[in-house]
Amino acid sequence: MDFAAALAYGRDQGAALRRLTFHDRARRLRALGTYLMERKEAYYALNLLTGATRRDGWVDIEGGIGTLFSYASMARRELPDERFWPDGKVEVLGRGGTFVGRHLLVPREGVAVQINAFNFPVWGMLEKLAPAFIAGMPTLVKPAPQTAYLTERVARDIVASGLLPEGSLQLVVGEPGDLLDHLEEQDLVAFTGSAATAARLRVHPNVVARSVPFNAEADSLNASVLGLTVRPEDPEFALYVRELAREMTGKAGQKCTAIRRAIVPRGLVEAVTDALRAELDKVTLGDPARDDVRMGALVSAAQRDRVRESLERLRQDAEVVIGGEGQERELRGGDREQGAFFDPVVLRCDDPLRSGPHELEVFGPVATLLPYDTLDDAVRLGKRGRGSLAGSAVTYDRAEATDLVLGLASTHGRLLVLNRDDAKESTGHGSPLPQLLHGGPGRAGGGAELGGLSGVRHHMNRVAVQADPTTLSAITREHVPGAQVQEDTVHPFRKTFDEIKVGDSLLTHRRTVTEADIVNFAGLTGDHFYAHVDEIGAREGIFGRRVAHGYFLISAAAGQFVSPAPGPVLANYGLENLRFTEPVGIGDTIRTRLTCKRRIRKDLRPGEVRPTSVVEWHAEITNQHGGLVATYDVLTLVERARDGFDPPLPEAEAAEA
Amino acid sequence: MDFAAALAYGRDQGAALRRLTFHDRARRLRALGTYLMERKEAYYALNLLTGATRRDGWVDIEGGIGTLFSYASMARRELPDERFWPDGKVEVLGRGGTFVGRHLLVPREGVAVQINAFNFPVWGMLEKLAPAFIAGMPTLVKPAPQTAYLTERVARDIVASGLLPEGSLQLVVGEPGDLLDHLEEQDLVAFTGSAATAARLRVHPNVVARSVPFNAEADSLNASVLGLTVRPEDPEFALYVRELAREMTGKAGQKCTAIRRAIVPRGLVEAVTDALRAELDKVTLGDPARDDVRMGALVSAAQRDRVRESLERLRQDAEVVIGGEGQERELRGGDREQGAFFDPVVLRCDDPLRSGPHELEVFGPVATLLPYDTLDDAVRLGKRGRGSLAGSAVTYDRAEATDLVLGLASTHGRLLVLNRDDAKESTGHGSPLPQLLHGGPGRAGGGAELGGLSGVRHHMNRVAVQADPTTLSAITREHVPGAQVQEDTVHPFRKTFDEIKVGDSLLTHRRTVTEADIVNFAGLTGDHFYAHVDEIGAREGIFGRRVAHGYFLISAAAGQFVSPAPGPVLANYGLENLRFTEPVGIGDTIRTRLTCKRRIRKDLRPGEVRPTSVVEWHAEITNQHGGLVATYDVLTLVERARDGFDPPLPEAEAAEA
Repeated sequence: MDFAAALAYGRDQGAALRRLTFHDRARRLRALGTYLMERKEAYYALNLLTGATRRDGWVDIEGGIGTLFSYASMARRELPDERFWPDGKVEVLGRGGTFVGRHLLVPREGVAVQINAFNFPVWGMLEKLAPAFIAGMPTLVKPAPQTAYLTERVARDIVASGLLPEGSLQLVVGEPGDLLDHLEEQDLVAFTGSAATAARLRVHPNVVARSVPFNAEADSLNASVLGLTVRPEDPEFALYVRELAREMTGKAGQKCTAIRRAIVPRGLVEAVTDALRAELDKVTLGDPARDDVRMGALVSAAQRDRVRESLERLRQDAEVVIGGEGQERELRGGDREQGAFFDPVVLRCDDPLRSGPHELEVFGPVATLLPYDTLDDAVRLGKRGRGSLAGSAVTYDRAEATDLVLGLASTHGRLLVLNRDDAKESTGHGSPLPQLLHGGPGRAGGGAELGGLSGVRHHMNRVAVQADPTTLSAITREHVPGAQVQEDTVHPFRKTFDEIKVGDSLLTHRRTVTEADIVNFAGLTGDHFYAHVDEIGAREGIFGRRVAHGYFLISAAAGQFVSPAPGPVLANYGLENLRFTEPVGIGDTIRTRLTCKRRIRKDLRPGEVRPTSVVEWHAEITNQHGGLVATYDVLTLVERARDGFDPPLPEAEAAEA
Repeated sequence: MDFAAALAYGRDQGAALRRLTFHDRARRLRALGTYLMERKEAYYALNLLTGATRRDGWVDIEGGIGTLFSYASMARRELPDERFWPDGKVEVLGRGGTFVGRHLLVPREGVAVQINAFNFPVWGMLEKLAPAFIAGMPTLVKPAPQTAYLTERVARDIVASGLLPEGSLQLVVGEPGDLLDHLEEQDLVAFTGSAATAARLRVHPNVVARSVPFNAEADSLNASVLGLTVRPEDPEFALYVRELAREMTGKAGQKCTAIRRAIVPRGLVEAVTDALRAELDKVTLGDPARDDVRMGALVSAAQRDRVRESLERLRQDAEVVIGGEGQERELRGGDREQGAFFDPVVLRCDDPLRSGPHELEVFGPVATLLPYDTLDDAVRLGKRGRGSLAGSAVTYDRAEATDLVLGLASTHGRLLVLNRDDAKESTGHGSPLPQLLHGGPGRAGGGAELGGLSGVRHHMNRVAVQADPTTLSAITREHVPGAQVQEDTVHPFRKTFDEIKVGDSLLTHRRTVTEADIVNFAGLTGDHFYAHVDEIGAREGIFGRRVAHGYFLISAAAGQFVSPAPGPVLANYGLENLRFTEPVGIGDTIRTRLTCKRRIRKDLRPGEVRPTSVVEWHAEITNQHGGLVATYDVLTLVERARDGFDPPLPEAEAAEA
C-alpha cells in the first residue's frame, strides 16, 4: 500500500473540503446520518459476527450515526457560516484602541489519521470522523483487523453516498506499514487502543520530528464508588448493583469505559456481592442473534485467551466471589469453545491497596470489589487508577457527591453521579456522549475527543491575529469596536439580510431624558426602585441622585433606532453583553449608534415561505459628553432577499461538489 | 540532586496551593509583581552580563513582571473565586431535564516542570510560572545555564517574598539528570529551546509511559511579508524596513520570534535592501551598558561560533547583501573577540524555493530577503517554514491583509498586520503578549502558551460531570435550570451578598398585559414598531397580531421582582443571554421567577466604604399557560455584610500563608 500517495491525495482533496463552510459541512454530515440510518440493518447483520447482541450494536451503530447528527447540529447552532472560526473576544492591545487582537481557528491542512480499536467498529470511526469533517480535515481511518469488515461496510456506504467531497474519507485495512513515516506537520493522529501501542506509535521519529499531534485513548481501570451514606434499602443501592452488572456485561465487558473497580463501603461488600450475584444470574449468555440472550461472545478466541490470562494474574491479588471455573452457565445457542464465550466474574480484594486491581485491565466481563472505610479512602482508591476515562459515584447525598466528584476530578475525563433523580434519564457510567469530553489523563492516554466543539478544535490551528480594528473586521467579517463604519441614506432596518453589510451603521437623533420619563416609566412598569423615584434614598445611594431605569435607556434607544413600518427586520429575539457603564440623570441627553456586527445565515427550512436569517447589531448609547452609557448586542431576525437566498440543501450542494 | 525528592516535595506542597481560590492566587501574584518591580534594578544590572542592552532587558524583566500582573487581573476578572472552574454551558442530556452535564477544570495535582531557553531568563520563567500558579500547580524551573544567574536572582527574591505558598517555585540550575525519570501522571513539562532537544525529551520513556503532557516551543523561521500593493513612498514601506531592522537587532536577534525571512515583492527587493542598509547603519554596536549602544553582544562566544557556522551554511543558498566579513562597524566599548559581538547580516535568495532560508535558523542578527511575484507565492513561501511562532504582513490594503492572514493562518501561532493605523500602538512582530497565544504548529514545536486563560487551562484537568440538576448545582455552586430552589419569607433583594445563597428564589405576583400597556410603552419610549402598534401590519407579520415590546416584558418583570426601598442590592449593571421565546399578546398574564445563579465575590478596594460584590440572577418570565416567554441573567451589585467581608489583601493573606 502506497501510504505516501494516500496521504498526499487526502491533503490535496482537503482543499475542496476546506472551501465548504462549517454549515455546508454540517448539512452534508446530517444528510450522511440519514443515509446511513436507512442502511442500518446491514450493519446490524455484520454486528452479530463480532459476538455483539443487537443492544450492543445499537450503541455502536446508532450511537455512531447519532454522533454525526449531534455534530451537524452543534456546528449549525454554534459555528459561523464561514471557513474559519473567530474564537473568544476581541482583545484591545493599546490604550488608543488602534491595535487589537483576536484568535481565529482554521482547519489544519493535512489528514486526520485515525487508528481505531476493535470494540466499536462503527462508532469508533464516526465519532472521530464527525469532528474532523466539521473542522475541514479529511480522514484516513485504520480500523482494528478483528472487526474491520463492519467498518469497511459503513465506509463503503459513506463513499458511495457521494455526500462528502471526494477524499474526505479513506480506509486502510491491515497493517499500518510505513504510514507514520509519511506524516507531515499539518497531519494529526487520533489513536484508540492499548497503552503499549500508543506508547510505541507516539515516539515514532517522524511524528516527533514534525510535532504531529498524537491523541490517545488507552486502557483505563474505571472505578465506580457506592456512597458511604447509602443503605441497602435505598434506591441507590439497587441502582449501583444494576449499573455494575450492566457495565460488566454490555459488549461482554469489552468497553474501555466499563467499570473494572467497584469501590464499596466495607460494611456493604457482602450485601453488594449477594445482590450482584442475583443480578448477574439473570444474564443469559449465548448466540447474540437470539432475543433471549443478554450477552454474546468476546470478539475472538485470541481475545478470550487474553482475558483468561489477565484474570489469572489478577487472581494473585484478589479472590473470585462470583463466577469462575465450574460456575459456567448454560449457553443459549452457540458453541462454548468456538464462540469465545466468557462468563461474568467478580473478584474481591480485601486489601484494596494491592496493585493488581488498579493495574490489570481484564478486557471482558470482569470487575473487582474493593472495600473502603472513609470517603478519603474511596477517593484515594479511585485515583490509584492513575488516570481514567470514566468514573461514577452512586449516592443521593449531595455533599458526598460533591466530595467524590471534586476528589476524583483531577484523574478523570468524565464522572457520573447516579441517584434516584437522574437514574431514569441517565445514559450510564460507560457511555461517551458527543457533548461531553471523552478521554482521560495519565493511563487513559492523556487524550481528548468529543466534548462538543472541543472535538472540532483539536483539528484546527489556533492563531492570534493582531491588527487595527478595521483590518481585523475585514479579516473576521465581524465588526470590531473602533473599526470604520459605513453610514448610508437607507436605514439599515430597510435592508434585507442579503443587502446588509458588516459595519453598516446608524447614528440616531438625540433625546433628553426628563423627570417625566422616569416617573412615567416607573408607573408603567411598576419598577419603583428608590434609585429612580425616591429623591432621599437616591441621594444617599451610589449614584447620589435619581437616575433613569437602565431598562428605560435600552427601550428609548430602540425608539431611536427602530424603523417602525413593516420591513425586512422582523423581530428582536434576544440581547447579549449588556453593560450599563454610566448612569443617566434628569436632563442628560442620549443618542445611540447601531452597527451591524455579524450576519448569521440560516437555511431555508422545508416549506418555509419567508426565509430569514440573523443579524447581530452592536448598540452603543452615549450621553451629551460623548460618554458611553450602555453597550450591548441585539439579535434580530431579518428577511432574505426574494432571490438572494441559497437553494434547499443538501442535495443541491452534493451535486455541486 | 535528588529530583525524586524535589518533585515529591512540590506535589505535597501543591495541596496548600490548591486550597487557595483563583482570586487568592491572583492577589498573591499581583503582590509578587509589585515586589519584584521594586527590585528590578538588580535584575537590570545582571541583564548587562548577558550581553543585552537595557531596552532588551526591559522586554525580559518588565515584560516578565507584566505577565504576572496580566494573569492576576485576568484571573480576578474572568475566573470564579473558587478552587475549580466551571467550563462552558450546562448540557441538557435528557428530554425530561433530570440529567445534565457540564465540564469542570481542576488543577493537575502534580508539578509543572519548566525547562527554559537562555534568551529570556526572567520572562521565560515568569510567563510559565504565572499561568501555572493561577491554575494551582507548583513550578519546578530549570533555566538554561548561560543566563541562569539572572533567573536565580529573581527566583531567590520570589521565595524570599513569602508571597507564594512554600514549594510553589523550585529552581534547578545545571544538568537535568534523571529529572524526567521521576515524573508522574499528574505532572507536566513545558519546554522552550531547540527542536532537537525537544524531540529528545519528548520521547523519554517515562514521559511517554505516563502520558505526561509535553509542551514545546522550538525553533521557528518566522516570516514577514511586504504586501504587493505597497509602494516605496507609502508609510507601510518604511514601517516594514524599520520593523525588520528592529526584529533583527533586538536582543541581537536571539529571539525565537524574530523575523528570519523577509518576503518582498520582486520589484521592491532593491529598494528594501537600500532602505534596510540605511536603517541598519544606524545600529550602534558595543557595550550594552552604554546609552549610545543599540545592540549588545550575543550571549556567549560559543553562541557566536554557532551563528557564524549556520550563517556559513545559509550562504550556500543565499548571497550576503548587507554586512558580512570586512563590513564590521566600529565598536562602542567592549572587545570584539571577548565580547561575542556580531554585526547584522542580510542575505538575499533570488531562488526563494531553495531550502536554506526556510530550514536554517541563524540565531543572531541575520535575515534573508526572499522575492515573490504573486500573493499566492508569498503565502507558499511563508508556509515553507513548516510552522512558525509569529508572522507578519505589512500592508494597508485590507483585502491583501485578509488573503495573507487566512493563507498563513494554518502554519502560524500569531500573525500581525502592520500599517499606518496600528503602527503607533503595535507591540511589534516579535512580542508575545499574555492575552494572545504564544506557540506554533510543526517546526515551532506544536505547543501553546499564554493566550489568556488558555495558558491556565493547560495546567488543569478538564472533566465532564453528569448528574441531576440539583447535584450539579451543589458541585459547581452555580444554579442549574431544573435544580431545586429555596423560597424564603425574606425577599432576596433584602439580603446582603453574604446572606444570599445560590438557589435562593422568588416567584412574583402576576400581571396581565393590556393594550394600554403596549400603547403607553410605545408612546413613552418612541418605539412604534408595527408589530406592537399597527394592527394591519402586525396581522400580516410573523406573530399575526399586536404583541408587547420585548423591552416592556423585561421592564415589567423588574417591576415584579424589584424590592423598591433602599437595601443591599444597589444596582443592576448588566444583563446576559436574553432570549424572547414566545410573544406576549394583549390579555396574556406574565409572572417572573428570579433565582440566584451565581455569587461573585469582589475584594474591598482600598478606601472603599461600602464593600460590594456581584450576584447573578437567572430570570424566567412565563405566561398564563406556564410557557416560557423570556429567559435571561441579571447582574447586580450587592452590599457585603458589615462584618462578613474579607480583610484587605494581600498583606493579610501573605501573613496567613
